[in-house]
Amino acid sequence: MDTYAGATTGGVLTRRRFFEGLAAVGGISLALSGMDALGFGMASATELPPELTGGAKGAKIVILGAGLAGMTAAYELSKAGYQVQILEARSFAGGRCQTARKGFQHTDLIGHEQTCDFDEGLYINHGPWRIPYHHRSTLHYTKLFGVLLESFVNDNDAAYVYFEKGKGPLAGKPVRKGEIAADARGYAAELIAKAASKGDLDAALSPADRETFIAYMINEGRLSPKDLAYTGTEGRGFSVHPGAGVDPGPGKELPPFAFKDVLDSKAWRVLTSVSGYEQQRTMLQPIGGMDRIAAGFEKHVGAMIRYSTVVQKIKQNGKGVKIAYKDAFGETGEIEADYCLCTIPLSVLKQIDLDASKPFKAAMEKVSYAPVNKIGLQMKTRFWEEKHHIYGGHIYNDMPGIGTITLPSTGWQSDKGVLLGYYAFGGEAVKVSMKTPAERAAFALAGGQKVFPEYTDSFESAFSFSWHLAEYNLGGWAEWSQDGRKDAYPVLCEPDGRLYLAGEHLSYLGGWQAGAIESAWQQIAKIHARVQQA
Amino acid sequence: MDTYAGATTGGVLTRRRFFEGLAAVGGISLALSGMDALGFGMASATELPPELTGGAKGAKIVILGAGLAGMTAAYELSKAGYQVQILEARSFAGGRCQTARKGFQHTDLIGHEQTCDFDEGLYINHGPWRIPYHHRSTLHYTKLFGVLLESFVNDNDAAYVYFEKGKGPLAGKPVRKGEIAADARGYAAELIAKAASKGDLDAALSPADRETFIAYMINEGRLSPKDLAYTGTEGRGFSVHPGAGVDPGPGKELPPFAFKDVLDSKAWRVLTSVSGYEQQRTMLQPIGGMDRIAAGFEKHVGAMIRYSTVVQKIKQNGKGVKIAYKDAFGETGEIEADYCLCTIPLSVLKQIDLDASKPFKAAMEKVSYAPVNKIGLQMKTRFWEEKHHIYGGHIYNDMPGIGTITLPSTGWQSDKGVLLGYYAFGGEAVKVSMKTPAERAAFALAGGQKVFPEYTDSFESAFSFSWHLAEYNLGGWAEWSQDGRKDAYPVLCEPDGRLYLAGEHLSYLGGWQAGAIESAWQQIAKIHARVQQA
Repeated sequence: MDTYAGATTGGVLTRRRFFEGLAAVGGISLALSGMDALGFGMASATELPPELTGGAKGAKIVILGAGLAGMTAAYELSKAGYQVQILEARSFAGGRCQTARKGFQHTDLIGHEQTCDFDEGLYINHGPWRIPYHHRSTLHYTKLFGVLLESFVNDNDAAYVYFEKGKGPLAGKPVRKGEIAADARGYAAELIAKAASKGDLDAALSPADRETFIAYMINEGRLSPKDLAYTGTEGRGFSVHPGAGVDPGPGKELPPFAFKDVLDSKAWRVLTSVSGYEQQRTMLQPIGGMDRIAAGFEKHVGAMIRYSTVVQKIKQNGKGVKIAYKDAFGETGEIEADYCLCTIPLSVLKQIDLDASKPFKAAMEKVSYAPVNKIGLQMKTRFWEEKHHIYGGHIYNDMPGIGTITLPSTGWQSDKGVLLGYYAFGGEAVKVSMKTPAERAAFALAGGQKVFPEYTDSFESAFSFSWHLAEYNLGGWAEWSQDGRKDAYPVLCEPDGRLYLAGEHLSYLGGWQAGAIESAWQQIAKIHARVQQA
Repeated sequence: MDTYAGATTGGVLTRRRFFEGLAAVGGISLALSGMDALGFGMASATELPPELTGGAKGAKIVILGAGLAGMTAAYELSKAGYQVQILEARSFAGGRCQTARKGFQHTDLIGHEQTCDFDEGLYINHGPWRIPYHHRSTLHYTKLFGVLLESFVNDNDAAYVYFEKGKGPLAGKPVRKGEIAADARGYAAELIAKAASKGDLDAALSPADRETFIAYMINEGRLSPKDLAYTGTEGRGFSVHPGAGVDPGPGKELPPFAFKDVLDSKAWRVLTSVSGYEQQRTMLQPIGGMDRIAAGFEKHVGAMIRYSTVVQKIKQNGKGVKIAYKDAFGETGEIEADYCLCTIPLSVLKQIDLDASKPFKAAMEKVSYAPVNKIGLQMKTRFWEEKHHIYGGHIYNDMPGIGTITLPSTGWQSDKGVLLGYYAFGGEAVKVSMKTPAERAAFALAGGQKVFPEYTDSFESAFSFSWHLAEYNLGGWAEWSQDGRKDAYPVLCEPDGRLYLAGEHLSYLGGWQAGAIESAWQQIAKIHARVQQA
């Protein structure tokens, strides 16, 4: 972990560093109140687009790719007076910000053709699907463009966990996450509270602190204050629900699992003190599909986009850039500009004839792209809600090639639903993606069937997508090794001549829309500064 | 905690007991799959209304109170052929299922008059405001009546906790719940993992179990696997958010608080292994206000309701019941029926002239009603989202009379919002309720101001409600002592002559709409069985 003092390098006291200085001296609270005093929230550095003042000096910018990075750049640059053209290989805008609904077509590199056949109103976000509350940059544009948001259920104690590679009686059984949480934490609290009460942890705690610590453990583990025993808790749920009158009356609590069984199950893997920052509540999603964000951008920059225009060469010299392309009719053409902002994924860009320095090209080789699979399964009943009482959330499991199964966060109590049948990365994802669409659906159904008895019977139609098999992506997102981050990444963050790169691959928010947007912000600020100096 | 074997009393193998038997023998999973095999989910006992087959034999039922219990009974009984009339004291239906929006009027027993002045589209649910996912009975009617639901954010790690009665540097400071969770659990995990690795917990764990246990602790506490130390985690958040390029690049994590400071703060009170069952995710709410449920019922039973009709006497003999009332014009009248289902809260019913047995009346005295306050505060900006990045959830605190402050779960990124400024029970609630509406608002603002610097400046208008000062409620919900549950409650669950009681007060779901609905289901089943036998 970085410390404040060590991280404050360079002599310039920027506004952000000023607050870091406060934090180092007076603690976080002081820093926070200082920020509040200036009406300046925590995520400010990444919250707003750069102010591009001073005019565009007639400069022309060609942007490659109408994904979120490209459209962000086009929106902000054109607002600042720049002349902007975007070349987009696909016949639609959005890049990876896609939503599959009725009629959506996709042909992968193997040649598998699919047309989505979900019922009207149903969809799957086979690209990005979540917006963390702290991705201020993404939220800046949803607000600006009036994209309505709803909650995405990213954590659900009632959802099952299913670990078939564990041992013992809980292995290979769907068990609710809350039961595992209650038992694992309860038994652990009992052990530590008892050890503390015997003085076995004295080295770390004063007698007064020990009392407080035991009180915390009683609260955390729902222990009996008398003997510090964990014997279960109503938070695990009920075999007979509490209700009216004397029967069912108070109901009957489910008894705890044995500690050994919980440990052996490996289901405790889903428990951490706090969710990873990127996964924390409150998670959001656009009402109606993630591509509402792409549509919001397109409304403003659509007229600057040349669709179905595939970049073939990127040439540059001291005076400008020249992009050769093939258009929708297969005709070749060229476009010239002062600068090029290229948002094409490096996996694809590597294969394009490109005027760039040797170190720049070498750096481009130092990144790999993640194989990523998703599949939407339309179910004719929402059995997970009706029969299992699970409203959204993930079914964490250890089935190879399944990753997570995720239940929809919208359309509560409606008739049908599309759930995410797998969300898998890496080698297992590659294996599954080699199957035909029908075989992929069968694979997903076989996995889900182990968790939900109603799964296969309820299935109606599927739409699967493999990002590594998508012609203009060749992967879900950039994966940087530690060495790559250190040596290659900084090279690509700087322009090479008149060529600037942008996208999630040039951020530490890899695979998130915020990474694409903030990378675009950063690079257009650099272009603008150069134009101002020229 | 009940055990399965001990709780199976009586000789009749009902369907539910059959499953309990399975659970006792083969474990929960077997029981679950047995239930699934019969297409029969877990909360089934309280999931569906009773089937009232066999005809109503021309019977007339008078229902007192058009809250959720009364309207549930009216809906199901009239569907089964009964003649039904509902007497309702208020000019509107719903009972406690109320939503205050522009124009909503309330005069409390002290004489304070209020007319809600929120902007169009904004509201506060000053009665019930949440629907747990396992309240199948409530969800039965939201589905039946097409009441659309959305997520209610009932748990948010980004929300502040604020404990001013703690000690140390964190006392009286807003701190994010996730930071407390990371640190308290992280340090605790470090202590116990180290103790386990030294063999100090050997009595409870075999060497192999110990290894697994330490692995769990590393995962739970985000410990270093090398030295089992807790030194913070990115789950606590960042002082500089990760972003694009090399600056901010990976960002800077917030450092952990000191363990002693966390313990002294008492903020760990908000942490438990798993949420209480009633408070678990996924929590739901009707889109547009809780009174959409009341409106759903009213659409079907509104024609049976006599509004503004205050019950004055409840008389009965061996042949029927006779209810004396005062109507909207102040005229008295009477209505006769075969049976009476009375949903009037016991706090109010105790004061009505009532023909009932001595034991029944004595039992009615054995319950108390909770003083409960709520206040909605309209804020002209959603500063909690914009400045603090908190999207819904509760600000847990220890400020007397405030209880919790709760941020709205809907209208993300819209211009204004109504938050819940206090939700308090008991003596402190009584004190605050004695103030004028303006003073109550000032009290709420002073509390919230300690947490959010923008609170008072953003305030526009307030609407407060005290259930103990509401004429036809005299309290938020019934509170049963252990003795009362044992001796008085079962008496009131049975009819007294031709008088049947129903409401949340006759359930173990006190204060929840599900309690009212399920109590009504239970009592109408008894009436129906009696009619069938007569």
